[in-house]
Amino acid sequence: MIFRQFFDHESSTYTYLIAERMGGEALLIDPVKSNVDQYMHSIGEMEMKLVLAVDTHIHADHVTGLGDLRHATGCASAMGEMSNTECVSIHFKEGDKLKVDNLRLDVLYTPGHTDDSYSFVLPDRVLTGDTLLIRGTGRTDFQNGDPADQYDSLFDKLLRLPDKTLVYPAHDYNGMTVSTIQEEKLFNPRLQVANKQAYVELMNGLQLDNPRLMDVAVPANRNCGLKSAA
Amino acid sequence: MIFRQFFDHESSTYTYLIAERMGGEALLIDPVKSNVDQYMHSIGEMEMKLVLAVDTHIHADHVTGLGDLRHATGCASAMGEMSNTECVSIHFKEGDKLKVDNLRLDVLYTPGHTDDSYSFVLPDRVLTGDTLLIRGTGRTDFQNGDPADQYDSLFDKLLRLPDKTLVYPAHDYNGMTVSTIQEEKLFNPRLQVANKQAYVELMNGLQLDNPRLMDVAVPANRNCGLKSAA
Repeated sequence: MIFRQFFDHESSTYTYLIAERMGGEALLIDPVKSNVDQYMHSIGEMEMKLVLAVDTHIHADHVTGLGDLRHATGCASAMGEMSNTECVSIHFKEGDKLKVDNLRLDVLYTPGHTDDSYSFVLPDRVLTGDTLLIRGTGRTDFQNGDPADQYDSLFDKLLRLPDKTLVYPAHDYNGMTVSTIQEEKLFNPRLQVANKQAYVELMNGLQLDNPRLMDVAVPANRNCGLKSAA
Repeated sequence: MIFRQFFDHESSTYTYLIAERMGGEALLIDPVKSNVDQYMHSIGEMEMKLVLAVDTHIHADHVTGLGDLRHATGCASAMGEMSNTECVSIHFKEGDKLKVDNLRLDVLYTPGHTDDSYSFVLPDRVLTGDTLLIRGTGRTDFQNGDPADQYDSLFDKLLRLPDKTLVYPAHDYNGMTVSTIQEEKLFNPRLQVANKQAYVELMNGLQLDNPRLMDVAVPANRNCGLKSAA
């Protein structure tokens, strides 16, 4: 498997390029519009065919590259069925599988950060979007976020994956690139709460500024990062 | 194996934390002085014992954390036998093995970026310092760097590792975190030269500014990042 993690310095976003092999099909998860040329270069030099570009949810902190990638390559684009957008060609739901040659990514619906947040599971790793971060969790105070839903997504879904599962989030602000389910169970300060009510109180007590790009990014991302209707 | 890659935003340095298991021994490679608290936090929460801190070479772009880590933990510190420093407790050479519980890292001497540059080989991956970068190679124009030596280090040592070997460099400036030997053979523009002479001409033709911190970092790093004699 080819599994490449790209870091966007401006928004601290991780984008993932996944393929079974050079020369085969490729999948991009959470591409950033301003870095589309970099992804295209990597895909081109490995002679891969981009078949699908996916967002884990409608992002508020960067503009998605889904639309530009579709225009450039003709790839399919996808968000979850809960994403309020008509700009993608596929809407996935829990239980679906994203296919890239012989690879299969299982779709989990993991709301809480937003009501359209999804995670993607491979045999040894999970891409957790903004639901589970390294030693953190995604904020729950806008875009129909809900800390009680996030608690369920974390404790009933993601943390039930095998302890050794590698955790690849959509962001990190501290220079960390990967973790494991075991480490997050043990050391993530937000996961040490006694129960769901304590988690809700913890998350509702956070006083966070809105993301700098939110008023630009959310409307743009509902349109796959393109200015006009797609 | 626990294998953690930390990114230093200021100098674009990757630092690696390697251990066989939680609760066991730990090794740090290329620690950055200003991030020592972060490494100590990770090591502490996983209840690991830092047994060794290593620099791949004397860095010119950031100050090493070797001295601070030794003071904080009593760990051994190591650089290669070619590093002109008395501040470390161990000098390794090609053919040596760095031991962390049951893990073994094979030492390769890979001069060229500097005359004290080493790489470390695990069964499925190699830490290449500044010798082999993702789609690049370390500059060879100071600290006894030598493009002909670097050509030999690259073509006679690193590129002879199995194609699937994962490549973890000491820096990346473009948001990439990992590559493979195969990818670098095929796509690294500096490795597409016809012969050693062409590589020497390519490297000697680069017009690069000195690293911003060079005048501070090199003397400091000869003393393990400490102000007074260690």
